[in-house]
This record gives sequence, C-alpha cells and structure tokens, in this order.
Amino acid sequence: MAGNSYGTLYKVTTFGESHGEALGGIIDGCPPGIQLDFEAIEVDMARRKPGQSAIVTQRKEPDAVQFLSGIFEGKTTGTPIGFIIPNTNQKSDDYSHIKDNYRPSHADYVYDQKYGFRDYRGGGRSSARETASRVVAGAIAKQMLPEIKINAYVSSVGPIHLETPYQELDFSKIESNPVRCPDEKSAAIMEEYIRDIRKQGDTVGGVVTCVIQNVPVGLGEPVFDKLHAELGKAMLSINAVKGFEYGSGFSGSEMKGSEHNDLYNPDGSTKTNLSGGIQGGISNGMDIYFRVAFKPVATIMQTQDSLDNKGNITPMTGKGRHDPCVVPRAVPIVEAMAAIVLADFYLINKTY
Amino acid sequence: MAGNSYGTLYKVTTFGESHGEALGGIIDGCPPGIQLDFEAIEVDMARRKPGQSAIVTQRKEPDAVQFLSGIFEGKTTGTPIGFIIPNTNQKSDDYSHIKDNYRPSHADYVYDQKYGFRDYRGGGRSSARETASRVVAGAIAKQMLPEIKINAYVSSVGPIHLETPYQELDFSKIESNPVRCPDEKSAAIMEEYIRDIRKQGDTVGGVVTCVIQNVPVGLGEPVFDKLHAELGKAMLSINAVKGFEYGSGFSGSEMKGSEHNDLYNPDGSTKTNLSGGIQGGISNGMDIYFRVAFKPVATIMQTQDSLDNKGNITPMTGKGRHDPCVVPRAVPIVEAMAAIVLADFYLINKTY
Amino acid sequence: MAGNSYGTLYKVTTFGESHGEALGGIIDGCPPGIQLDFEAIEVDMARRKPGQSAIVTQRKEPDAVQFLSGIFEGKTTGTPIGFIIPNTNQKSDDYSHIKDNYRPSHADYVYDQKYGFRDYRGGGRSSARETASRVVAGAIAKQMLPEIKINAYVSSVGPIHLETPYQELDFSKIESNPVRCPDEKSAAIMEEYIRDIRKQGDTVGGVVTCVIQNVPVGLGEPVFDKLHAELGKAMLSINAVKGFEYGSGFSGSEMKGSEHNDLYNPDGSTKTNLSGGIQGGISNGMDIYFRVAFKPVATIMQTQDSLDNKGNITPMTGKGRHDPCVVPRAVPIVEAMAAIVLADFYLINKTY
Amino acid sequence: MAGNSYGTLYKVTTFGESHGEALGGIIDGCPPGIQLDFEAIEVDMARRKPGQSAIVTQRKEPDAVQFLSGIFEGKTTGTPIGFIIPNTNQKSDDYSHIKDNYRPSHADYVYDQKYGFRDYRGGGRSSARETASRVVAGAIAKQMLPEIKINAYVSSVGPIHLETPYQELDFSKIESNPVRCPDEKSAAIMEEYIRDIRKQGDTVGGVVTCVIQNVPVGLGEPVFDKLHAELGKAMLSINAVKGFEYGSGFSGSEMKGSEHNDLYNPDGSTKTNLSGGIQGGISNGMDIYFRVAFKPVATIMQTQDSLDNKGNITPMTGKGRHDPCVVPRAVPIVEAMAAIVLADFYLINKTY
Repeated sequence: MAGNSYGTLYKVTTFGESHGEALGGIIDGCPPGIQLDFEAIEVDMARRKPGQSAIVTQRKEPDAVQFLSGIFEGKTTGTPIGFIIPNTNQKSDDYSHIKDNYRPSHADYVYDQKYGFRDYRGGGRSSARETASRVVAGAIAKQMLPEIKINAYVSSVGPIHLETPYQELDFSKIESNPVRCPDEKSAAIMEEYIRDIRKQGDTVGGVVTCVIQNVPVGLGEPVFDKLHAELGKAMLSINAVKGFEYGSGFSGSEMKGSEHNDLYNPDGSTKTNLSGGIQGGISNGMDIYFRVAFKPVATIMQTQDSLDNKGNITPMTGKGRHDPCVVPRAVPIVEAMAAIVLADFYLINKTY
Repeated sequence: MAGNSYGTLYKVTTFGESHGEALGGIIDGCPPGIQLDFEAIEVDMARRKPGQSAIVTQRKEPDAVQFLSGIFEGKTTGTPIGFIIPNTNQKSDDYSHIKDNYRPSHADYVYDQKYGFRDYRGGGRSSARETASRVVAGAIAKQMLPEIKINAYVSSVGPIHLETPYQELDFSKIESNPVRCPDEKSAAIMEEYIRDIRKQGDTVGGVVTCVIQNVPVGLGEPVFDKLHAELGKAMLSINAVKGFEYGSGFSGSEMKGSEHNDLYNPDGSTKTNLSGGIQGGISNGMDIYFRVAFKPVATIMQTQDSLDNKGNITPMTGKGRHDPCVVPRAVPIVEAMAAIVLADFYLINKTY
Repeated sequence: MAGNSYGTLYKVTTFGESHGEALGGIIDGCPPGIQLDFEAIEVDMARRKPGQSAIVTQRKEPDAVQFLSGIFEGKTTGTPIGFIIPNTNQKSDDYSHIKDNYRPSHADYVYDQKYGFRDYRGGGRSSARETASRVVAGAIAKQMLPEIKINAYVSSVGPIHLETPYQELDFSKIESNPVRCPDEKSAAIMEEYIRDIRKQGDTVGGVVTCVIQNVPVGLGEPVFDKLHAELGKAMLSINAVKGFEYGSGFSGSEMKGSEHNDLYNPDGSTKTNLSGGIQGGISNGMDIYFRVAFKPVATIMQTQDSLDNKGNITPMTGKGRHDPCVVPRAVPIVEAMAAIVLADFYLINKTY
Repeated sequence: MAGNSYGTLYKVTTFGESHGEALGGIIDGCPPGIQLDFEAIEVDMARRKPGQSAIVTQRKEPDAVQFLSGIFEGKTTGTPIGFIIPNTNQKSDDYSHIKDNYRPSHADYVYDQKYGFRDYRGGGRSSARETASRVVAGAIAKQMLPEIKINAYVSSVGPIHLETPYQELDFSKIESNPVRCPDEKSAAIMEEYIRDIRKQGDTVGGVVTCVIQNVPVGLGEPVFDKLHAELGKAMLSINAVKGFEYGSGFSGSEMKGSEHNDLYNPDGSTKTNLSGGIQGGISNGMDIYFRVAFKPVATIMQTQDSLDNKGNITPMTGKGRHDPCVVPRAVPIVEAMAAIVLADFYLINKTY
C-alpha cells in the first residue's frame, strides 16, 4: 500500500532493512535555497546511533549519510533530496537462530503472515534502524524552520518519573548525560536503574516528552489533519510507541471545564496552557508539548519461549547487541518526526 | 490543504458547519454489492445525536441522513456514496454573543487567525456536530466488515474509573444506561457525577475504551501507516481528544521486557496481550484495544473571561445547549473512526 | 480506489449518478475570503446544461446548485464547500431497455464486469451528467484566479476544422452561436453539419481548443506532476475524450529542433510559442493552449447490435434525448477542468 | 509539492540530477514474493541508455542499477525497493556555458524563476536522464504482471510515418534495428533521415506507439482516475512529450457514431476496437493502444540565440553529446510508464 511515505508537501519516503545494503530515503518538497548545515545533521545522527554510551546498545554503526541529489553548492535546490546510509556492521549470523522462529512481541510472525516470507536478519524492515532515515529528514526539516525550537527529553524510565514541569527545566542540560534527562539528579537515578536492568538481562520502557516553542499561529488542517492528530500518528509510527498525549492529556480527562479552560491574555496568549498549544487542531502560538510512551525492548538476554514456523514452542535467548532501554536514543527520533510534521503544515499554511 | 478527507481506498470526505444548510460527506471506495442495513445506520446516528438522555445536551436535532448516490436497489454500487444531514434546529441567535468574541479553549481565535474570518455560529466547522458525518461513514464501514466486532464504552468520567478489564465486561450492557458504561454500578456513579457537574454549570472529561475483535492478521502498512498509528490519528482527530494509548499504553512504559512480552501459543495467538493486538504496526489476530482521553467540554454555564477581537478581556457566560460530559455521545464516534480505519486497511490488505 | 477526487490542495471530490437523487461534490482547500459571484457560477452551469439550443440534447434539467457549507455571508470560509445539484427530470423508464443490455461503445459492460452490477439508468455514474459537478468546482476555481483568463471554444466538428490560429480569433464571439466557435462563418457551417447529422439519427465528434492567458511563471511540479501532464489527465478524464495535445502537439513531432525552438526576448518571453506556454512541466508565462479530441456520442438514433448479459446479440435503437455532437456543451467542462488544475498548482506554488 | 511520486499502491518516487552523485528511486507497494529477473531489468536499461547505436547520443553511461532494499534471496519482500544508478560519466565542464544562460526551449529559465536558482549541469533535474529510474520501476512492474504484454515502437520520425496498423506488425522485430521500428523498410528510411538530420546539426521529433495486450477487464478508477487519463498523464510526464491519443484518437473526432461504435461479439469482445481497449475509463479486455508525440530535442549543434540571466540575448551553440532524435530511446520509457500505471490499477482492482 505504499505506507512508507509521510507528509503531503514536505514528503519523506524511506527504505531499507536492518541488514540490507543500505537504508535511505527521499525528501520531496523541501523548499529551495536552504543553506544546509551538514554538521547539525551529523549531530542528530550521532544522538540516535548505537554505541554512544554505556547504557545503550554497543553495536558500532557509523551511520554516515551520503546525499545524492537535491543539493547544489551546499543549498537545497527544491528537487528531491535522495540520501543513503550504508549498512556496514551487519552481523547477519547473529540472526540465523530466528530464521524460522518468531520472537515474542516482535514483528516476525505478522510479517510472515502478511507478506508470506521475510528478511529475518535483524528484524529486517521492522527494525528501529529504519528511524535513521527519519532523523536525516527531521534534521533538514529543523533547518527549514529555524525559528521553531524543538526539544525532546526523557521524562520517565520505567517507574522513575521526572515530575518537574518542562518550564522549570534547562533544556541545555539534555545532552549532558547519557539518559537525555535534563534534570541531573533524576538522570543519575535513571541511569543507575538502566544499568541494573541490563545486568538482569532485562529491558525497560520509558517516556519521552517533547516541547515545541515559537510555533506560529495557524498550523494544522482540520477536521482530520489536525496538528495534534498528525503529531500523534507520527509518534505512534515510531517503533515501540504505545501511547501519545498532548497538553493535559489523560489527566485532562479527570478535570472540570472550569479548571481546564485556558483564559486569554489581551494579546491572544493564554494564562495557562492545558490545551498544549493547539486548539481545534490548529496551533495557537503557545508552547506545544506532548508525551510519548515507549514499551520495553522485546529482545531480552533471558530465555523465553518463542514459536517456530511449524507451530512448535521453543525456548530462545536473546542474541545480538540490543538496548536495555530505548528512550535515550528515541529522543532525536521524536524530535525528527515532530519537525517533519511541522515542516509539512508550515508549507501548507503558506497557501492561505 | 484539503484536510477533510480520511483514508486511501475507503476514503471519507466531510463538509458542513454547525449552523449551515447541511452537513454531509462522500464515501469513495466502498466496495460494490453490500446490502445496506439502513436501520443500523440510524441506530448509530441515534447514539450520537443530542437530546437522547438527561445527561447530554438537550438540543433536538433529528440528524436524518439522506443518501444521494452510490446505492441502487439497496446495495452499494462501488461508486461514491454522497449523503447529507440537513441542519434543522439551528438557533443561530444563541451565538451572536460570540461573533466578535473568542471563548476560552475553543477554536474561535485560531480560526480567525488562520482563515481571516469565521462562521461563528455554533463553532462553525470546529463544532463536534461535524462528527455526525463520520458516524454515517463508520456505520457503512462496519457493514463492510461484518466479521469484525467493534465495541466502545465509557471507562472513565472525570475521576471515576472503571477498573475492570474489558474481558470481564458484558458489552451487551453498554447501551443499557445513558453513560454507555457496561458496568452498571460504575455507570450509576458516573451518571450521578455528571448530574452533579451539570448542576454546578460545569463540565467534565472522560475516557472511552474501544475493543476490536475478530480482526484478521495482517492489517496495517508499516513503517508510517502502522495500524495503531492510523487508529491514533483517527481518534485524535475527534473533537476534544487529548490522548491515545493502545495495549499496555502508558503503563507499559513502566514495565520490564520480561513482564511485557506476550508469549505465543502454538497457533500463533498469545497467552497475554499487552501488545494490544498489533505488532510492528500490523494486526496479529488478538483483540485490539485502546483508550481515548477526552477533555471537559469548554463551554460551561459559569462566567469566564473571554477575549474580543479588539484585544479586550470581557466576561462571558455559556449559552446554548451543551453537554456536561461528552464521552457518552463520543462512544459511537470512536467506533465509527475505528471502523473507517479498519475498512481502509482491509481493502489495502486485499492487494497482497 | 477512491478515484473520484482531483487535486492536492484545491481538491474536488464528486458524487452522483445520472438518475439518482442528486449530483454534487465537495471542494476542499478553497482559500478563505473569496467573495463569490454566484451568477458567474450559474452562467457556466447554463453553458453546460442540456436544452440550451437546437443542436444539443432537448432534455430539460434546471441544474440548480445548492451550496451547503463553506460559505458565510457570501464569502468562502476556507472550510470544505459542499454542494448538490438535485436530479429533477429523470425519465428512468427511458432506460429499462438497457437494464440487461450493453450498448456498444458505452461503459455498461465494463461497469457490470468490474462492480458486479450497475445502476443502469442513464448510464449511472458513467453518464456525462457527472460533469455538472466539475463545472461548479471549476467556476469557483476561476474566481480564485481572477487574473488568469481561460477561454475554450469548438475548433472542429467532425471533418470541419477552424484553421485560424487562436491569436486571430475574438473570444468574445464564442458565446454568440450555439456551436461555441468564435469564427462565425465556420460556426454556421458546423451548425449546419450537426443539424444534418441529427437528421440522420447519427452523431459526430469534434475538437475543443483551450487558451489560458496571464498564467504566472512557475506553475507545475516536475517530474511527474508537470503542468501539461495534469492538464492532460484532467481533460482525458472528461467523458468521450480520446486525445490531448498542447503547443505544437502532434505536428511538433514532425518538426526539426531548429524550427521548433522558441527564441527568447530580453524579458523572458519568447518570439514564438510552439512550447505552448510550458517548459519542463512549468508555466513560462506565455499563453498555454491545447486541443482536446472528443469521439462521437455512442448513443445514436439508428438500430445497432447490442449485447445482453446472457451473451445474446440483439438489435437496439437509441432512446432518450441525446446530443448529436457533444463539443458545444464540452466547452465549459474543458474550462472547468483547466481551472481546477491551475487552482491546485497555484496554491502549491505559493509554498515556494 | 512533492511532484516526484507516481501511483497510489504501486508508488514510485524518484530523485536525481543529470550530474549529481546518483539517480535513484523507491518503489513502494510492490507485492512480496516476486522472483526478480535482474537480467530483464538490465535489458530495459540498456535499451534506454545512451551510446547504444550510431543514431543516438554517444555519451557512455553504464547505468548500472544497485538495489539496496526490499529484495531478499532474489525475491521482493513487500517492503520498499530502494535503488540507485550512480552517475559516472559526468562532464560537467560541458555545461559551464549555460550557468548564466537560458537555452531556448529548455527548462533553464523556468527552473530559475520557480526555485530561485538551479543545478545547471546537464539540465539538472529537468534532464531526461531522470527517466532511467522510471525504467527500473517499470521493469519491475512488468514482472509483476507477466500476463500482460506491453510493446512500444517508433511509428514516426519527423515526417516519416509508418502507416501499417499495429495488428499487421511483428513486434519481435522492434529490437532488430536502432530506430525500434518493427517495419524494416520504414526503419531504414527513418534511420537514414536521422543520420541526415544529425549531419545538419539539427534534431527531429517523432511518435511512439504503444500496444498493451492481455489486460484483464476492469482496470481503471472513474471518474477522475480513468485508465486512459492516467496513461495520458504518465506519458505526458515524460520529457519532450507534446501529445497523447488512444484508440481512434484525434481522428475519432472526425467520425460519426455509426462508424465509431464497436459492436460486440457474444463473448464481450468487440468486432472493431476504435475504443482502444478502454470504455468509460475501464479496460474492456481488448488491446489498449495509444500514440505519444515527442518534440525535437531542443539542443541543436547550430548557433541560436539564448537569454542570459541579466536579460541579454547572446548566441549559443549546442555542446555536449545529444540525441538527434529521441524516440528510439523513448520506447522503453513509454513501456515503463505504461507498466507502472497498469501495476497500480491492477493492485487497486484486487480490492473489489
């Protein structure tokens, strides 16, 4: 069905399996004349890539992006930007044990059922390695919207929650620790917790919070393509995501209207922002903020039952190099998808 | 930008303002030869319409659907199904007070900013009245997929939560009370709470849970158009929705992999279903279930400050006939959007 | 597949069968704030409607458009414009003879094969009556682009060709005769020819030429959505169209490069315009002109063999009220589709 | 606007400039399990590539395709197929003379106007080199539809026309001569003519005819996405195309209904086929045939006036290695675009 494209005017299409020749994508609709900061793209790629700290997977993948088109003399030309990220460190032998086996809570089984067979190496297309292409597209989208500030950070690791409202956090500290939690005290506890989980051969989930500032009023296209609906879809399309809420979110469902309504200031801003920067699906100029829930990584270093393609239940122990907790590396992916959504609505809104 | 269409093969486009001539829509891509049960469509419309019980708005709107095309001798022809729902009970004078005023936590301000002016009567296009068209399209989608069972119900009203897992509920009781909560005890408490809130001139939010059963394996189109990502977008596009989670949802983010993984039975089903019926964005044949958070209705019968279009803050008291709690009427809307998403992926999956 | 929508940002979706309740459509993405001239819309509808002269079908259909949404106080609001055109003069009995019969060179057979059954009355969805909705959408698109001048006219009727280049024609004379040919002498001969054909109980094809002036430089989105490619698709989607050529067209294929190249003037305009106002799929500011070939109407008042749904060949004589030559009524349809294409590209081009 | 994608379910997106790092594309939606014949892909690429005979451009480009994803153990996996075609023989210095100059009847001027600047080397994105990616996507589409036979051939070179109806031609002779005209006598005259044109430093246009056989009944999605409308758009999106006609085409506009109607045989086939295999936008099982007109290549080896970006008219002589006549190399491109259109409608039709 061609489910590998995102966006209408800023349109990202990706390809690539975990252990194929290369990942890559095409960004179609990027406006011409943007002087690209390639270093900034590399920085976001480095934030996503494996092996960057002791609490993430120890795979080493250079994740070097090669741009093949759409850029001339350092500037975007308005034509499609093709890019590839060669796969250089595939240890496909790590995966021969899953050739005929379906790992629990992985996509192995459904891919075989839907497509009839699958590239089983490293999860193939269902691997989170695919998100590398999204980070490229998001990094360029960020440069398209230099006014808009997108900051994501880890706000929960398993049962450990950072309760401080985002307004009281110093986003410049997000990159100061491997957890990507801007509160250093919480970050230390989270890091300790992840190390402990890893020792158990286990994994744990977490939550990424994202704050978008300086968004102009007017982005979003009701009634179906509401800004928060697209943000939700974009986040839910990231591997391992189980939930999305913006503004008051689920806790807003417990509130009364008299508490929840955001009263206006004369300039159109609001005194509170339980709405989360979006009204009726359209940005209102206040900060947009949302939370994204990630489940624990399914591959654990303990023995669990799996199913083989003949209907036998067989014990299996995780192999390969996997993350004990995915949220630190998910931070740049959340930012990237947010940037892609905003870039698309930004272009659409120019037509009014 | 043309944000008023949903779906690729089962494609729904809606039009209509709260106080215009009519609402309506076009369902394009509905397969031919479906013998329509018009009564079933009326039933879903009646579940959504105002005035059906003491705890919802007392507006009287007949919400009669007129089908104009795409149906011949009671069967769908495969050509687009055009339909209208005439607006018959508009009291536009109720809204003259908001002509130049922006109500807090309504879309009045952003519509004026984005479009330059707005049809202010009853919220115009941003009114939840628009969802009537979705219910029509969803009711037909349900008939397209007679095997699949979609049941939504109210699981929270404000701080009152139904904690019983859905497996222990009797869905046939959902329609037995005006709250649409299948647990009669909880329903009674919720109803009482809503009555109380209404007396206060206030409103309250809530949560709708939706369970989808008998879904074939294979629906969903990774990597962007994952089944849960589209369900999330579809739900978040409904008025007043603030959050979406499926399967283990936000609570899954607190769990360990060893607890969260769903182990297989030999037939491919799983012993647990924290995954919520979807793996890697593709249905796995287990029950799909998700929760949708609704904020409290913004219009309250208390006096609150509003903003006028000259920058003055002026007190305003809600007029018109509004719901104290939106979730009972949201139940058929959640089902309708779920059905539309499934119908689309069902058709797409036929191409494999 | 949902093939009833056209356009990305200015997006038109239509519905309706020849003998159903109503035709209609939704225009999504029309910019807000356009003060609509409803009379101009009526004028285009009147140019398309049956019964307007002695050389077209004598059916009487009022073709009155009712706008249901998206317009407030006479201006577009930026929300979807829903409209219907009630069917008031259906003589369905005229068509009982084709219930089980496939007329030659009609779509009866393929609709039955593709959809399993069909609304046989008047051709159902395959009737050119559907184009009434296009004329509505095109008339609004024209008002969105007041600078751009779109003039279509009949340049051939059967073997009778108007050879005069469009530059030497007076477009104000197009409506001065029932053929819609701006050259009065040719018009008279064409009209005479059509009258003669009708007397024979026969029909004849023709060609419509369309000239678009004052198009800004830059419309069109290579490489697939080239301006002339979309114009071509739009024209070929009109009933009975068999060919499309723009600029030098088929005759350009016989020329040498040294003859065909359009040399520049210092201001970027060109001395000749064999390119037809489009280079590389993008408008270059020169006049756009193209020709659209229509086949003869398939329903003739002579006896011809038809096929019934049991495989028998049976003689059939055309009934109903049909056009002896379709091109005079096709003129406003060609203009409408051209306007829809331009409106879409115009909005897209605003994003650069 | 993201105009670089084609198709809904079989969706092709391309990237690449004439003198960038590489061309390439993504085929999304190709069904899983197709055992690819890579040699057949190479054959089509070789038919398109420069330097294959004395009558086409003498540039040497290996045009080797590298597949990067979506294929496992020689079979398609149902995930997106990414591929690149590295540019290896760019002589960018050949183009320094057009850095600030707009060649007549090229896209240089409109690209500068639309995008603000351009990659001027070899025409950048507007170069027909882009069609190499289409040939890859088309070659795979052909393998998806092994029953359907697509044969294109040159039917005109400048004023020299092959008048023989396609039914009397032997398609196996198309590749027997460098012109790709299956009639050897005509081919020889055409070849002689092209050699002569080349000696003059001139170029000439031509016509490609395409015949598609064994198409199942039912492909095409009215009312806008009619089969011939998409074929027309696909053809018109190819560089240098000026016109498209199918079935009786422009000559059909001169005919009477009594002559033009295709009478049925009892099995649903027709005695004649002026309809060109399509009724009402849907394939009827008869042969589909259409003609595509190409203008002469704009770059000629004679001196012509060009415009520079300061508004000066300056004489310029064509450099580089260009085709004197583009139609022999256009044959596989026409086939490729036809195959892409058919593959998309084939998948869509499976949903009925």
